[in-house]
Amino acid sequence: MQLHDPARRGFASDNYSGVHAEVLAAIAAANDGHQSSYGNDAYTARLQQVVQGHFGDRAEAFPMFNGTGANVTALQSVLPRWGAVVCAKTAHINVDEGGAPEKVGGLKLYAVPTPDGKLTPELLDVEAFGFDDEHRAQPLAVSITQSTELGTLYSPDEIAALAAHAHELGMTVHLDGARLSNAAAALGVPFAAFTTDAGVDLLTLGGTKNGALGAEAIVALDPDKAAGLRFLRKTNMQLASKMRFLSAQLIALYEGDLWLRNAGHANAMAARLRSSLEGVPGVEFTQPTQANGVFVRLPAGVADAVREQFFFYDWDGAAREVRWMCSFDTAEEDVDAFAALIRQASGG
Amino acid sequence: MQLHDPARRGFASDNYSGVHAEVLAAIAAANDGHQSSYGNDAYTARLQQVVQGHFGDRAEAFPMFNGTGANVTALQSVLPRWGAVVCAKTAHINVDEGGAPEKVGGLKLYAVPTPDGKLTPELLDVEAFGFDDEHRAQPLAVSITQSTELGTLYSPDEIAALAAHAHELGMTVHLDGARLSNAAAALGVPFAAFTTDAGVDLLTLGGTKNGALGAEAIVALDPDKAAGLRFLRKTNMQLASKMRFLSAQLIALYEGDLWLRNAGHANAMAARLRSSLEGVPGVEFTQPTQANGVFVRLPAGVADAVREQFFFYDWDGAAREVRWMCSFDTAEEDVDAFAALIRQASGG
Amino acid sequence: MQLHDPARRGFASDNYSGVHAEVLAAIAAANDGHQSSYGNDAYTARLQQVVQGHFGDRAEAFPMFNGTGANVTALQSVLPRWGAVVCAKTAHINVDEGGAPEKVGGLKLYAVPTPDGKLTPELLDVEAFGFDDEHRAQPLAVSITQSTELGTLYSPDEIAALAAHAHELGMTVHLDGARLSNAAAALGVPFAAFTTDAGVDLLTLGGTKNGALGAEAIVALDPDKAAGLRFLRKTNMQLASKMRFLSAQLIALYEGDLWLRNAGHANAMAARLRSSLEGVPGVEFTQPTQANGVFVRLPAGVADAVREQFFFYDWDGAAREVRWMCSFDTAEEDVDAFAALIRQASGG
Amino acid sequence: MQLHDPARRGFASDNYSGVHAEVLAAIAAANDGHQSSYGNDAYTARLQQVVQGHFGDRAEAFPMFNGTGANVTALQSVLPRWGAVVCAKTAHINVDEGGAPEKVGGLKLYAVPTPDGKLTPELLDVEAFGFDDEHRAQPLAVSITQSTELGTLYSPDEIAALAAHAHELGMTVHLDGARLSNAAAALGVPFAAFTTDAGVDLLTLGGTKNGALGAEAIVALDPDKAAGLRFLRKTNMQLASKMRFLSAQLIALYEGDLWLRNAGHANAMAARLRSSLEGVPGVEFTQPTQANGVFVRLPAGVADAVREQFFFYDWDGAAREVRWMCSFDTAEEDVDAFAALIRQASGG
Repeated sequence: MQLHDPARRGFASDNYSGVHAEVLAAIAAANDGHQSSYGNDAYTARLQQVVQGHFGDRAEAFPMFNGTGANVTALQSVLPRWGAVVCAKTAHINVDEGGAPEKVGGLKLYAVPTPDGKLTPELLDVEAFGFDDEHRAQPLAVSITQSTELGTLYSPDEIAALAAHAHELGMTVHLDGARLSNAAAALGVPFAAFTTDAGVDLLTLGGTKNGALGAEAIVALDPDKAAGLRFLRKTNMQLASKMRFLSAQLIALYEGDLWLRNAGHANAMAARLRSSLEGVPGVEFTQPTQANGVFVRLPAGVADAVREQFFFYDWDGAAREVRWMCSFDTAEEDVDAFAALIRQASGG
Repeated sequence: MQLHDPARRGFASDNYSGVHAEVLAAIAAANDGHQSSYGNDAYTARLQQVVQGHFGDRAEAFPMFNGTGANVTALQSVLPRWGAVVCAKTAHINVDEGGAPEKVGGLKLYAVPTPDGKLTPELLDVEAFGFDDEHRAQPLAVSITQSTELGTLYSPDEIAALAAHAHELGMTVHLDGARLSNAAAALGVPFAAFTTDAGVDLLTLGGTKNGALGAEAIVALDPDKAAGLRFLRKTNMQLASKMRFLSAQLIALYEGDLWLRNAGHANAMAARLRSSLEGVPGVEFTQPTQANGVFVRLPAGVADAVREQFFFYDWDGAAREVRWMCSFDTAEEDVDAFAALIRQASGG
Repeated sequence: MQLHDPARRGFASDNYSGVHAEVLAAIAAANDGHQSSYGNDAYTARLQQVVQGHFGDRAEAFPMFNGTGANVTALQSVLPRWGAVVCAKTAHINVDEGGAPEKVGGLKLYAVPTPDGKLTPELLDVEAFGFDDEHRAQPLAVSITQSTELGTLYSPDEIAALAAHAHELGMTVHLDGARLSNAAAALGVPFAAFTTDAGVDLLTLGGTKNGALGAEAIVALDPDKAAGLRFLRKTNMQLASKMRFLSAQLIALYEGDLWLRNAGHANAMAARLRSSLEGVPGVEFTQPTQANGVFVRLPAGVADAVREQFFFYDWDGAAREVRWMCSFDTAEEDVDAFAALIRQASGG
Repeated sequence: MQLHDPARRGFASDNYSGVHAEVLAAIAAANDGHQSSYGNDAYTARLQQVVQGHFGDRAEAFPMFNGTGANVTALQSVLPRWGAVVCAKTAHINVDEGGAPEKVGGLKLYAVPTPDGKLTPELLDVEAFGFDDEHRAQPLAVSITQSTELGTLYSPDEIAALAAHAHELGMTVHLDGARLSNAAAALGVPFAAFTTDAGVDLLTLGGTKNGALGAEAIVALDPDKAAGLRFLRKTNMQLASKMRFLSAQLIALYEGDLWLRNAGHANAMAARLRSSLEGVPGVEFTQPTQANGVFVRLPAGVADAVREQFFFYDWDGAAREVRWMCSFDTAEEDVDAFAALIRQASGG
């Protein structure tokens, strides 16, 4: 029973999109018959191989329901109860998880302002101090996002430098990869180049924003550091009973190149949108467009004029800055029609 | 890509089964196009109507990923930080949620031994005392399970009596309905008869164990008592971004009679299994078989002899008590072949 | 400014009493001048030596404000986030700490019914199972109380047997020693005999109930097991700024024999009270009187008849069981007058 | 037994000092005899009257062990589980409580950079947004410190303006008054002028830093807003058994004018220290000296040269900024000798 218009799309978020047909087919293929629940099934076993193919032989994958659950559980697994996390002020864990890191995880976040959503060794130092002082929640982990919440990218070298500095300080490095595929597609390198090989200790591997129905995974690159992920996933209420269907989604994305096709397309649509609007009077891009998000300041009135046809969110209302997200299912026609509307409303 | 034998089934758990074809079709129908994430979509709106049809006009549904998340979040929503929950010792929240009620919810559980998984007003009184004494975590809620973890049922009158007593004490009544459909099917009454009309304040409405891919909902019957469910769902990491697909599953089950067909079938298979084995020497049923679970003590060696062909779990290993669960997809042939094996292994 | 009658005493609790004169003198001696706060002071340093004299060279003491804080912090320090604690159902941590172990500690308690407040290896096994099963909060510690909440005692051998069994299971052994001095005084052995030498891993060392103003300490007997006590004390809001005064109290009690004089006196008063009432018709002792508490069932009406003059609490109101606690300042005259009243009210 | 030099004092912290003689006398006067534990005693009852004398008839006082416990418990009492707190980045709750607000309280802090440790309505707006958006931990309280951690003061009007703005936004106003007496002494107004009358909803009333042994209190000015303080104090492990001694300390300070004498003296010593060093080359004061703390940048090498004789802490090591705290027991000779040393080391 269909209650919505399947032809209607906007630029609000990559999670406004649905499920890629190949993912849906994979769910159907995993159906029927009985499989052990809670991860002791053939699909979750295969997922381990798929993940190891991308991240190396030591990698272990723990399917989770959503990104918040994955991020909080991953961070807990590498921190003692007195631990804290340094992150960018714009990090999803800081601004978009309802306080779950603090409330469920018992973790303090040290949120550092950044120009572009990216931490650097210098920015890490802003909060990475006071080790061994019990009056200060101990900043024993750093969490970065790739691609970032501002649509920007870390180069593999940038991540390697940050991870090296963090490790020198005795900190663990977590990467929120809700949009890891967009990053790899944009950088044109394997996942390992900016994760395993760059010193990342564990990461959240996204699926939902890139064509899954709802599936993420924690990938522990150094399982020795991530003690108790199996237990924490359960206590954090993120252990799926019919896990085969989560694993099947992730296999569909990551065994072949679906992750790359989907993310590459989303990135290309963002680039197309930007290039369509470069030079339009009053339209100022506020961040580099390196993945699938476009951040832009619009002339007064423009956002509201076009939002009804193609919905999207304000990023900073006072500054008239908005965010446009492209998805695996964004069509060239969507982009072109949207850009035309913007140009028209801008008087361009 | 299929990695398992779709013809193989056992009696381990109703969550070993897959997704009912109508649920899968509903997911596909909800696909394509963009829908607002996090619940502001057409399917979640429709779900409200479906749920109100069953539970009355004041009911509100909050889709959740899993039963543990739903139970803990529901209980938190009706309890202050100093609250505690009285439940049966065998309750899922007490023995099967990894301590999430304590660890995520910050709730103390007062677990009361029962003969059959069911609380009574007298059993509630065992722990419902010490109100207003700050040294005692305050037992301000009671949680019951219907059908119970032991395959037994509360009658509507039993729930009404318990709820009335709880309310007299100032306690709120939560019902864990992971198998609510099995209960309604077995009792032959509408859901409201033993929930809304019996004084239950809020409940966990199951989907996953009855043919969904993965979907449960908290249903608040008195929204005034369940403050902040919307916020708690988020902080507890249970807010699905592509919620339309959770809601679509629940609509598929509950808008028509799929819930009843599936649960009724599972119950019938449990009854068939039991009746096939009544009178077999050494086979002792340890609980009434009122829903889709059969609890039985087997002669020595029998469990292991048959487990390879049809997997199932020990319930109390020392006592040679095992649990057999039937599901929406359990076939009569499964039951008959399994019963024959048991009889044979029992020398019956 | 005195607002109370300093001559009035009862049998309600050992924490109804005040401060022993020698403890008050020690506080005054530690006064004046500046000392580093938060434990970096001469008194806290000396306390380490005192504690090591009793518990061995590896012992480390962490002064805390109160017993609840000490118990919860101690247990957290030896448990992962997914850990749980097996304890007697009557344990202070289970019935008298407002749920702090669950709410602050995030710990699940498995409370085992006991006849006398004491666990045994067999009773431990009631809940010490399910290791490695993530669905079960992991029972990785056991907590016992010495002397118990029921006024009974473990022998050193009983503790050694329990600890050995717990260690075989991979569990850590915590001892709540709010009344440790009463136990040592009654047993006539050094503290180490039933702690360090018996396999206890860490304990709560009481002061408040034995003549301190307010001071307890966690004593880690195997500091390797108790990671992060320093940090946890702070995050649990139990780090005293003017710690010298907590340490001075504990030194006053434990450097010489004040602990023994006070506890021995309290025990003797309990014994005197019991022997005064043995054989009085209708007065039934419900527990052995092995330390400073007397548990007794009284004839109807007796408790209320005498409570106005010497206050005490019901233990089990329905069973007319009451608890009488003796303290370091309980006078022989108090006991004799109280016993006379009881006898009179009992018609004895 | 005295283990330290009672004649030695420094400028490290007001909690390096000991107990004022009148406070110690009050403890002794409250001693002997039995008093109900946990607050049901004559001293805690009297404290209510004392506190109401300062803060109005609706005020209720809850004695606590320490400031961290008081702050976290106070904030929890006015916030739902999904709540967050806006505070200055330099607030004690943010930088000096080991993450207890997050770890015990489950509270997210939105820390706003300020020039002088003070929030304004405009600075509040930096984080007071997103109400009703479940993705954002809800900023439903603001916490300010008076006098601030930087030795500065809010005027009554500044607090009133901030509180009015917070209330318009539906937020509750908490005041951390660890040094409330220093503020009142400096402002020359009653406590109520900048608390009750200025719209503060509840506060932490300090004792320890102003001559107590160890005693603080939560003072609820609008008890209707502070639900469950009695329960939360217990679950947060801050309920003193021999509470009469905490209350006696606070009565000693606040029933007469000891709070004013002590704080006024400490403030005067800070002013004397500052004025002694005004104009010394290279000595730059970094904050106004409005209470008992002096913040100053020193020439290279000066801090280390004098620290051995009079200990104090770096505030911002990289900037050579240090903090000097004066206390009730700071002597004029201390100040003069210290200033002379600084001048000498500065070549002044």
